Amino acid sequence: MANNAVEVDTLIEPSWVIPINPSNKVLTNFSIAIKDSKIVSIHPSCDNSTRFNALDQIKLDDHVLMPGFVNTHTHAAMTLLRGYADDLPLMRWLSDHIWPAESEFVSAKFVHDGTLLACAEMLRGGTTCFNDMYFFPLHAGQAAIKAGIRAVLGITVIEFPNNYAADPQDYLRKGLEARDLLNSEPLINFTMSPHSPYTVSDKTFEQISVLANQLHLPIHVHIHETKTEIEDSLKQYGKRPIARFDTLGLLSPSLVGVHAVHIDDVEISLMANQGSSVVHCPSSNLKLASGFSPIGKLLRKNINVAIGTDGAASNNRLDMLAETRLAALMAKAVDGLAETLPAHQALHMATLAGARALGLDDQIGSIEKGKLADLIAIDLSQIETQPNFDVASQIIYAAGRENVTNVWVNGERVLKNKFFKNAISDTISQKTSFWTTQILNKRTN
Amino acid sequence: MANNAVEVDTLIEPSWVIPINPSNKVLTNFSIAIKDSKIVSIHPSCDNSTRFNALDQIKLDDHVLMPGFVNTHTHAAMTLLRGYADDLPLMRWLSDHIWPAESEFVSAKFVHDGTLLACAEMLRGGTTCFNDMYFFPLHAGQAAIKAGIRAVLGITVIEFPNNYAADPQDYLRKGLEARDLLNSEPLINFTMSPHSPYTVSDKTFEQISVLANQLHLPIHVHIHETKTEIEDSLKQYGKRPIARFDTLGLLSPSLVGVHAVHIDDVEISLMANQGSSVVHCPSSNLKLASGFSPIGKLLRKNINVAIGTDGAASNNRLDMLAETRLAALMAKAVDGLAETLPAHQALHMATLAGARALGLDDQIGSIEKGKLADLIAIDLSQIETQPNFDVASQIIYAAGRENVTNVWVNGERVLKNKFFKNAISDTISQKTSFWTTQILNKRTN
Repeated sequence: MANNAVEVDTLIEPSWVIPINPSNKVLTNFSIAIKDSKIVSIHPSCDNSTRFNALDQIKLDDHVLMPGFVNTHTHAAMTLLRGYADDLPLMRWLSDHIWPAESEFVSAKFVHDGTLLACAEMLRGGTTCFNDMYFFPLHAGQAAIKAGIRAVLGITVIEFPNNYAADPQDYLRKGLEARDLLNSEPLINFTMSPHSPYTVSDKTFEQISVLANQLHLPIHVHIHETKTEIEDSLKQYGKRPIARFDTLGLLSPSLVGVHAVHIDDVEISLMANQGSSVVHCPSSNLKLASGFSPIGKLLRKNINVAIGTDGAASNNRLDMLAETRLAALMAKAVDGLAETLPAHQALHMATLAGARALGLDDQIGSIEKGKLADLIAIDLSQIETQPNFDVASQIIYAAGRENVTNVWVNGERVLKNKFFKNAISDTISQKTSFWTTQILNKRTN
Repeated sequence: MANNAVEVDTLIEPSWVIPINPSNKVLTNFSIAIKDSKIVSIHPSCDNSTRFNALDQIKLDDHVLMPGFVNTHTHAAMTLLRGYADDLPLMRWLSDHIWPAESEFVSAKFVHDGTLLACAEMLRGGTTCFNDMYFFPLHAGQAAIKAGIRAVLGITVIEFPNNYAADPQDYLRKGLEARDLLNSEPLINFTMSPHSPYTVSDKTFEQISVLANQLHLPIHVHIHETKTEIEDSLKQYGKRPIARFDTLGLLSPSLVGVHAVHIDDVEISLMANQGSSVVHCPSSNLKLASGFSPIGKLLRKNINVAIGTDGAASNNRLDMLAETRLAALMAKAVDGLAETLPAHQALHMATLAGARALGLDDQIGSIEKGKLADLIAIDLSQIETQPNFDVASQIIYAAGRENVTNVWVNGERVLKNKFFKNAISDTISQKTSFWTTQILNKRTN
């Protein structure tokens, strides 16, 4: 240990580092130093002993270190409805099962407990930040803080009353209150989250647009998910939802449009020119038979495309590795080109593209000096990931969530050799059992 | 223990049993008894202590017991080329990378070692039987026996010479020799495996047809994988491959057609009427940009559709849970119907449909008295599989290969609480390292 060594909290020495920025790069025998919440150095591992004095030095043989995944669209609390109703057409699924269950059960406690379960699942699978659209954001945020994961919470608005709020003004007021209450929390950020073109009026969209501008918040909204949504919009507004958004002035770099399954070339150009982001949720689009998003086309127009798992009721997993693999596979077949969406680009979508959509790309999404230390380690020594000719390909096509061994969020080691540092698993198990019984009792009656 | 208790080897007491036959059934609090290689009883667990005397009694709380997966199409030895070349168009992938690598490295030892790696991966993920198409079947068979997995080996034939054989007669002779040598092995079965319509001549297909009839072997062949294959066939033979197979008399219940991506309604009816099986390999079809198989249509015509991972060079995993989930998701979007291919039907495809394609449905593929004990246990107690409202849905949509904890093949417990009973992992690790070095050295030179 040298006298002039820099004092750091953590020194991580993996076999490989994928920084994401610069792109398409795999660094061999590099280490990362963390001080407080930040990455303070990326350097050859041979410098560790001479240049750094670390409280905690972690050698991770056969591991790759990369930025944590940014799950850019989910409804975390709905994890309590995982597998509640499957293999059903969208409208029957919603009207006969999901909406009745939500109106029966959704409460502050349900959202807290469901979000906690979701956070644990996401962390175990390497997600360090999620973009949530649901109700009771204060309680979702408290669960995220308890789990130690970064959360971007929606100030969610729909035109209709539910257990959470009475009308659009009430949704806005409650969402903004939650934002004020969680203002000083380092893990919490917010978006304006109008649910969708078919559940929010022009008047409400206009108010949301004003608030998003004033408060510098992204606008997180479902868009062009199904053909029906577009047909209904044509009937009601005389235009397709993206054209309606254009008229309302909603297309901008702040727009985070989720799904974009049915999107034509003109609409792609429009979103590209306005610098809007798209969140691709392939599992949900397949499971609900919504269709195939033309991701290759979007990427060729340089649209920022991120990845989301959607909620566990329509996936049924919050597994960013599975979701990103599916995105990479599907993009090729939809395009008819096997070179579309190669492994490195898929890794970018699952990390930095998500951060950019959420306006957080100066803080997270890549391993760069000065950025927050949201990091994951993936073990490539297992039978399923051998032999290893190409680290990026191995992560995207061969690895699974079970190969994620260590996770840091904001500099904290939240998952250590696959275990949570605190007793969160027991808490979750108890709370989930409670809700399972509640829901099953109601269903049987 | 009662005096008149039946002596059995193993008694497994899971929380749930999915027998596959009868279909759509989940048995709660049932146990399975195994004697020698066979299932001898399926009964309520409350009868265990009075009716049975077991050498080994295994209680598996929160687990579902089901038949092992039948991976109905793979090239096991190619696992040594996992991630060797990705994100490339099919012909460049084959001509510039895979074929040169194969002609450099493929040997009896390569096939043995690669197949051993594949077997370990498959067993850990719940596959108890695989249908292989590759070279050196004797050595592939020896690896399967070592690993303790059931294998159906191809008597593979292509028109051209390679490291293994000189011409079609040589392929046939060597394959039939391997069959004679492995004749008494309980884990080994064979198929005739002409590679594809574009690599096998009419004359050779005719010989294969004769042999398949005489020896009562299925015919395992790639069919209608890409548009190019069909266009080339039209040029060379004046008909599409399935029509050519019809002329050659190859369409029958013995035909196991792999891929069937580009298949029209007439061809679907033809295969349905002849009772031929189709093996669906969705990951490979997406990754090589081959296209989308109309699985919903095939199922509505009652074609027997099984699931295959294809080889690890084009997937890059031999993960039947991931493959079956993808099949279930994709079938819905291709059909435009969320109710297409529900969870129970997907489980059937991954098990009994594979057994039927291989002519083994009287022996494996379901949990029935008298059948061979090829069984797997899946743990549904984890965060990722909670809450649990529907066991079948949970397996297909939420569980992963990492949730498979115990595997029995032919009555032997091959995987015990996630560990192999013998030191096979070390052997594989050494052999895989050896080949990785060989391949990387050659690539760098």
